[in-house]
Amino acid sequence: MNLTPVYAIKAGPLPWKASQAGIFGYRDLLPLAPGDSPVTLGEGQTPLVPLKRLGPRLGLHGLLLKDEAHNPTWSFKDRLAAAAVTKAAASGASTVIVSSTGNHGAAVAAYAAAAGLRCVVLTVSSIPREMSILIRAYGARLVAYEKGPDRWSVLRQAVEAFGWTPISGAVTPPIGSNPFGVEGYKTIAYELWGQLGEPPDVVVVPTAYGDGLSGIRRGFADLIALGLATRMPRLVAVDPFGAYAHGLHAPPGHQPTVPTRPSVAFSVAARVATYQGLEAIRATQGTAVAEPSDDAIVRMQLELASAEGVYAEGASVLAVLAAQQLASRRWIDADESVVLLSTSSGLKDPRSTAGHLPELPVLAPTLTALEAALPPGMCT
Amino acid sequence: MNLTPVYAIKAGPLPWKASQAGIFGYRDLLPLAPGDSPVTLGEGQTPLVPLKRLGPRLGLHGLLLKDEAHNPTWSFKDRLAAAAVTKAAASGASTVIVSSTGNHGAAVAAYAAAAGLRCVVLTVSSIPREMSILIRAYGARLVAYEKGPDRWSVLRQAVEAFGWTPISGAVTPPIGSNPFGVEGYKTIAYELWGQLGEPPDVVVVPTAYGDGLSGIRRGFADLIALGLATRMPRLVAVDPFGAYAHGLHAPPGHQPTVPTRPSVAFSVAARVATYQGLEAIRATQGTAVAEPSDDAIVRMQLELASAEGVYAEGASVLAVLAAQQLASRRWIDADESVVLLSTSSGLKDPRSTAGHLPELPVLAPTLTALEAALPPGMCT
Repeated sequence: MNLTPVYAIKAGPLPWKASQAGIFGYRDLLPLAPGDSPVTLGEGQTPLVPLKRLGPRLGLHGLLLKDEAHNPTWSFKDRLAAAAVTKAAASGASTVIVSSTGNHGAAVAAYAAAAGLRCVVLTVSSIPREMSILIRAYGARLVAYEKGPDRWSVLRQAVEAFGWTPISGAVTPPIGSNPFGVEGYKTIAYELWGQLGEPPDVVVVPTAYGDGLSGIRRGFADLIALGLATRMPRLVAVDPFGAYAHGLHAPPGHQPTVPTRPSVAFSVAARVATYQGLEAIRATQGTAVAEPSDDAIVRMQLELASAEGVYAEGASVLAVLAAQQLASRRWIDADESVVLLSTSSGLKDPRSTAGHLPELPVLAPTLTALEAALPPGMCT
Repeated sequence: MNLTPVYAIKAGPLPWKASQAGIFGYRDLLPLAPGDSPVTLGEGQTPLVPLKRLGPRLGLHGLLLKDEAHNPTWSFKDRLAAAAVTKAAASGASTVIVSSTGNHGAAVAAYAAAAGLRCVVLTVSSIPREMSILIRAYGARLVAYEKGPDRWSVLRQAVEAFGWTPISGAVTPPIGSNPFGVEGYKTIAYELWGQLGEPPDVVVVPTAYGDGLSGIRRGFADLIALGLATRMPRLVAVDPFGAYAHGLHAPPGHQPTVPTRPSVAFSVAARVATYQGLEAIRATQGTAVAEPSDDAIVRMQLELASAEGVYAEGASVLAVLAAQQLASRRWIDADESVVLLSTSSGLKDPRSTAGHLPELPVLAPTLTALEAALPPGMCT
C-alpha cells in the first residue's frame, strides 16, 4: 500500500489522496531534497469554519476560523514539527531537543516518535498538567526549570556538547524557531487559497516568535510568484502583553520588552517581538493587537464555544478578540474576509476554563429534580 | 462566500472543496431531505496513519489507524452528531437531550451550539473532569447521576414531557443511538474506500452500542450496491468486559449481560451487546474481542504514542489490543489490510495515563543536571 503520493500545487485544489501525505502534498514547495522521506501524521488540511453567529455580533460578515486543533497533536505546531523533524531525520540526527511551554514540545515529541528519533523537551515548572502528560506519553524526556530563560542556555549547551538537533530557537532575544519548521507554516497559506479560491483580506495569528506569521507570508508570496494569486492578505499579530504592538512602533534596531505575567494565553505570552514577525506585519500592511485580560479571554473562549461549537485554547481566542478590536476601530471593514488562525485545542488547558463554568450538579433521578436544576422556562 | 458545496460519491475521490462540507460532502448518501441545511464543523476526512513500527511488532504488515481525534470535538461521535443534529434542526427542534459518559455528549453539545439549539446532557458523577469542562464550555446543561441506568429513565421522561429530541438511545437494554446519527458513520466507510482505493480486509471498532459498527457496515454496503466496491470487510467489535464476545455466542433471543467495573476504556464499557452491533459482526463474518486490563490498555496507549506519535484514548487503544489478539490467533493474516478505528483523543482523560509516566523533574540550569536526569548513554 502506498499511502503517501506526492503532488505539487498546480492550477487547482489538492486531489484527495494528497491529504494522506499531510503537508507533504505540497512537497515541491517545501525545503525537501529528492531523497528526504517525509515524516507525516496526516497534519494539515484543517477545516475553515464560517463564524455565522459570532461574526455578525462583532460586526464582521466574512469571519472564518481555521481550526488547527484538527491536527495530530491538536495544534498548528504539527506543521512545523513535520517539516523540521523530516529534515532532522534526513540529516542523520538521532536526538532532537526543543524548549517549549507545551504545544511545540508535544508536536516535536510526536513527530520524533514517528521518525524513531529520541526527543528532549525543556519546559517551565508551571506547564499545565495535560501538556506535561501529553509530551511524556510520546516518549520524550521532559525536564522543567523554575525560570524560563534558563532553558535557552541549557539548550545551547546541549546542542554544542552532544550534537543534538534544535527544533526551537536557542538564542536570547529570540529570532524564531528551526527555519525548516517555519517553512512548514507556508502550507496554511496554500490551504486557505484552496479553500477560498483566493487569499483572504486579513489573517489574524496568535504570535510569540513570529514563525507562523513569517511562514504564512512566505506561502502567499509563493502563490503570487506562481501566478496563482494576485494579492497578499494583511497579517495581524496578537499577543497578551503587546510585544508586537510595541515592537512595531519602536525605532529601527530597538527591541522593546514588555512586562509579562502568568496568562491563560501562555502559549504566546511573549516579552519581545522577533524581527521575522515584525517584518511579516510591515511587508503586508498589517498590524498588531494586545489583549492582556485573562477574564476577557476566557469569556470569549466560552462565547466562541457556545455560539459556534469550537473550543479553542486561550492563545487562539486572542485572535477573536483582536478581530473585535480591529472591527470596532474600522481597521477591518464589515465585509472583508477575515481568517482567525485557531492554533490549538482548549483541551490543552481545560483548567483555565473551569473557574468560569457552573458547578456540575448531581441529581436525584426524577424529572422534578431535572426541572429544578435547569434555567426557568427551559422545560416548557 | 459559499463554503458548503455538495457532492455525491461518483466514481472517484472527493474533490478538495467537498472537505469543507464535512460529512455532507456525501450528502446524497445521507438521510437528508432536499431542504435540510447541514450542520457541520468540518468533521470527517480524518487521516489513515500506517503503523509502520507497531504493526510489524504485532505481526501485522498492513496495520493502519484511522485517527478520528482529528474531528471538531476530537472524537468520531462528531459524525453522529453532525447527522443527528442536522435532522433535529430540520424537524424544528429547539432542545436536544443526550445521555453520555463523555464523547457523545461533547459532540452533541458542540453541534447543538453550531445549530443554535439548546442541549441537555445527562451523565454519571464519575465523568472525567476534562470531559465535564468540555461539555459545559459548549453551553450545554450538564447534570450527573450516581447510578448510570437512572439516566435513561429521566431521559425518556424528559422527551415525553417536554418534547425534546433524543440524540442518544433511551431504552434499557440498549438498542443504539439516534438512527440518523448512525447513518453519519457510513462516511467512515466512504473515506476508507477513498483512501485505500478499495475496502480493507478488516476494520476493528471499539464498541458500546454498536452505532459505529452498524454505520460502517451500511457504508460499505452502499459502495457495493453502487458498484464501487466488490467486497465487505470483516468487522471486529472490542469492549473491555466481553459484552460482544458473549453476545455472539448466546442463543437467539438471549441478551447476556457481563459484569462491569470502572475502566480506562469507560467510553465502551458495555454491559450488554446490541442487536445492531451483533448483526453487523455476523453479516460480515467478523468477531468480537475483550480486553479488561486497565494496565494492558495504558501500557499499549504509551507504546502506540511512543512508537507512532498517536496519543489515543483508552477505548481506542482496545482496537490495537484486539488486533494483537487476533493476529496471534491467526484470525488475521500478517499481510491483510487492517484498519483500527481510533475513536478519540487521549486528551479526553489524561489522568489515566499519568500514573504510568515518570515524574517531571525540576532541574538546576546546568548541563550536568540535565545529563544526570537522562538515561545513561543518552548524552554521548
